[in-house]
Amino acid sequence: MTAAAIRAACRGGTWTRPTAGVAPGCAQANLAVLPRDWAYDFLLFCQRNPKPCPLLEVTEPGAPEPVTAAPGADLRTDLPRYRVYRDGELVEEPADITHLWRDDLVAFLLGCSFTFEHALVRAGIPLRHLADGRNVAMYRTRVATRPAGRLHGPLVVSMRPIAAADVARAVQISGRYPAVHGAPVHVGEPGALGIADLAHPDYGDATEVAPGELPVFWACGVTPQAVAVAARVPLLITHAPGHMFVTDISEESLAAG
Amino acid sequence: MTAAAIRAACRGGTWTRPTAGVAPGCAQANLAVLPRDWAYDFLLFCQRNPKPCPLLEVTEPGAPEPVTAAPGADLRTDLPRYRVYRDGELVEEPADITHLWRDDLVAFLLGCSFTFEHALVRAGIPLRHLADGRNVAMYRTRVATRPAGRLHGPLVVSMRPIAAADVARAVQISGRYPAVHGAPVHVGEPGALGIADLAHPDYGDATEVAPGELPVFWACGVTPQAVAVAARVPLLITHAPGHMFVTDISEESLAAG
Repeated sequence: MTAAAIRAACRGGTWTRPTAGVAPGCAQANLAVLPRDWAYDFLLFCQRNPKPCPLLEVTEPGAPEPVTAAPGADLRTDLPRYRVYRDGELVEEPADITHLWRDDLVAFLLGCSFTFEHALVRAGIPLRHLADGRNVAMYRTRVATRPAGRLHGPLVVSMRPIAAADVARAVQISGRYPAVHGAPVHVGEPGALGIADLAHPDYGDATEVAPGELPVFWACGVTPQAVAVAARVPLLITHAPGHMFVTDISEESLAAG
Repeated sequence: MTAAAIRAACRGGTWTRPTAGVAPGCAQANLAVLPRDWAYDFLLFCQRNPKPCPLLEVTEPGAPEPVTAAPGADLRTDLPRYRVYRDGELVEEPADITHLWRDDLVAFLLGCSFTFEHALVRAGIPLRHLADGRNVAMYRTRVATRPAGRLHGPLVVSMRPIAAADVARAVQISGRYPAVHGAPVHVGEPGALGIADLAHPDYGDATEVAPGELPVFWACGVTPQAVAVAARVPLLITHAPGHMFVTDISEESLAAG
């Protein structure tokens, strides 16, 4: 199925599952929708923290169409599932947000780690959580993000075990994709990030680090969501975990150089 | 002189000259100061047009200190000369803007082409306008920027003649520096950009393209200024041409990968 076909199936209510592996070659995106009154703080937070918050597109207030990432698409209907937070509390997980849409809502699309994971796998670097069909392990760190207006909080990272001989290539390959989190933020030494026990992630599923492997940490797209929730934005709408927006952007077009 | 010494001399009124060549190794920055009411449109314009508008830092409203680019500096006094526009009209070229400062002003620092020019020269790629002590040639193109809110207008490019054998390396070397305009936007064929005559630039000084050279075009930091002036922002303050803000950021730290 093409990206447009997946989006149409979401709109028609016939696709409500996670999107991992669909429309190969098309970049998927995290969604965050906030009122215009909060959009400047969120945009500035993304500008100041580009590794966890790589912006692909920002819509005009009230406009649900992402005109560059997927012309003709409708962000109110074209994801399989959403999460709705009011004052920082999760209140609803609908398959459609048309009933919540307002003229002052701004949608942010952020790059998703699927794209650099595909590049790593194509380069022959195995990723255990993918092979095992599990969610990636994610951790809150003691590294502070750069605050912006009312938004502040810790950096969240994802961890992938990488064989020592593959670490440098994993850095180089993911570093080609700054629009989807780019190069790792940290290699080895979880204690230096304030992570006491890799076996107990704060989000996702634990993945064992085998002998001869290092835990490699990338900035994670959960960071801006966690920060917006913590700030108790009056209305925040995101994708449901794993239920991403499938764009028309080719993954290869996101390579930097 | 160090970057801090140059800034102190600007503050003390003993340095009022252009900053080309000062504090080698320190990145210089374009300045744009706008009211908070326009800051979201400007920030979004930069996000949508990262090649002409590579953001290095955005200050909190009313705060004149660029806390990451030059901790302790004061953007109201530490540039040699400023330009003040009211409703799109140039009204003043002061050496200090303390008398104009307000609690709602936001300062944007944008990367400057000096950094990639230094990298090209270090790599043995000569730049004629530097050797001749002239300003780089700049042109309004017929390529539209991506609009944001009330801001829209054409892309402005700078042109440097590069020997055919050096073009690929010039792309690679400048491409390492996305925070200072990055790789060129166009190589050769000025007509395709809507440039009728290279001998008549819209800004700066004409530079001859010699036999065996191609005109190579980079996105130019004049673009966001020209757009803000065209939109008749009620108050816009910029650096005076060539009179940049000298930061503590090392040029090499801006290399992407």
